[in-house]
Amino acid sequence: MSRFIGPRSGDAIFSSVERVNAELFTLTYGATVRQLLTDLEDVDEVNKQLDQMGYNIGIRLIDEFLAKSNVTRCVDFKETAEVIAKVGFKMFIGVTASVTNWNADGTCCSIVLEDNPLVDFVELPDTCQGLYYCNILSGVIRGALEMVSMKTEVTWLRDVLRGDDAFELQVKLLKQVPEEYPYKDDE
Amino acid sequence: MSRFIGPRSGDAIFSSVERVNAELFTLTYGATVRQLLTDLEDVDEVNKQLDQMGYNIGIRLIDEFLAKSNVTRCVDFKETAEVIAKVGFKMFIGVTASVTNWNADGTCCSIVLEDNPLVDFVELPDTCQGLYYCNILSGVIRGALEMVSMKTEVTWLRDVLRGDDAFELQVKLLKQVPEEYPYKDDE
Repeated sequence: MSRFIGPRSGDAIFSSVERVNAELFTLTYGATVRQLLTDLEDVDEVNKQLDQMGYNIGIRLIDEFLAKSNVTRCVDFKETAEVIAKVGFKMFIGVTASVTNWNADGTCCSIVLEDNPLVDFVELPDTCQGLYYCNILSGVIRGALEMVSMKTEVTWLRDVLRGDDAFELQVKLLKQVPEEYPYKDDE
Repeated sequence: MSRFIGPRSGDAIFSSVERVNAELFTLTYGATVRQLLTDLEDVDEVNKQLDQMGYNIGIRLIDEFLAKSNVTRCVDFKETAEVIAKVGFKMFIGVTASVTNWNADGTCCSIVLEDNPLVDFVELPDTCQGLYYCNILSGVIRGALEMVSMKTEVTWLRDVLRGDDAFELQVKLLKQVPEEYPYKDDE
């Protein structure tokens, strides 16, 4: 974490930003999922919409993240994943995640969450077994990374609501678009 | 505020409960409203669904409120309205509201919000002019009060997104159901 200049810890940022009650957030998200299930009547369609909602959030949330975190350009995808897990999750939902299961060329890893405020009080009925309840999170990561020139695919490998022991999101880097500057730094 | 025993201030509670980043909440709510507009294609229907979502949240959020706030039974509707404005709003979204415009018999008042984190960054397009963007709030109040035996009607009188200078919610007490206990206190 020493390679970017002066990043603030997730804890420090989290305690300094404006916040709302976590239970209100959890219940609001739950009401949203429930509403989508009622309106769309199709679990796959709900998964898709939650991901899209997350994407729309992510492309805006990245600004707040960059403004508040003092994180500057990450040198590679490995550092990016660490920053998401250690700073991003802490800053937005108050929990820390860990990064594991890197592939050999450093383009694919897992982000593992032990704790997840989105699912407090949630139990899925049998009719919703195909639902990725937290799909908004994968969309947020995908959207935020796209704004810093990384095309990714984000999929759930484990989900506590489906009986697994943790939440595991696989983040695969598909393409990194080099950013182009209209002028050089030393001009 | 001296009539109920040992209530905690909204500030004290707000700083002690678990919280999430306000911008994440705001953007998530925005994404929800946008999704409902897309799915339902009818502003009145979206208003209705937001209110219903709020109601479902309110009937659960009241438990958190009672557990964390130490507020005990309010003596009348006037005190109830003050508690919602001063403790409830602070505890859940971090802002304070004021209570005004009481009718003569104390069954109808306005709750006025100067600040409202739900609408940060929000501008309504012309196609959404009939939308009550914050309708989830009126539903939450209605749902929460129903759980403490007060049937209410909650309507928006002013809305900053519609060009007004503040948010004003009218709360009208329709019916107060006396609570019945299965046994007497001194048994």
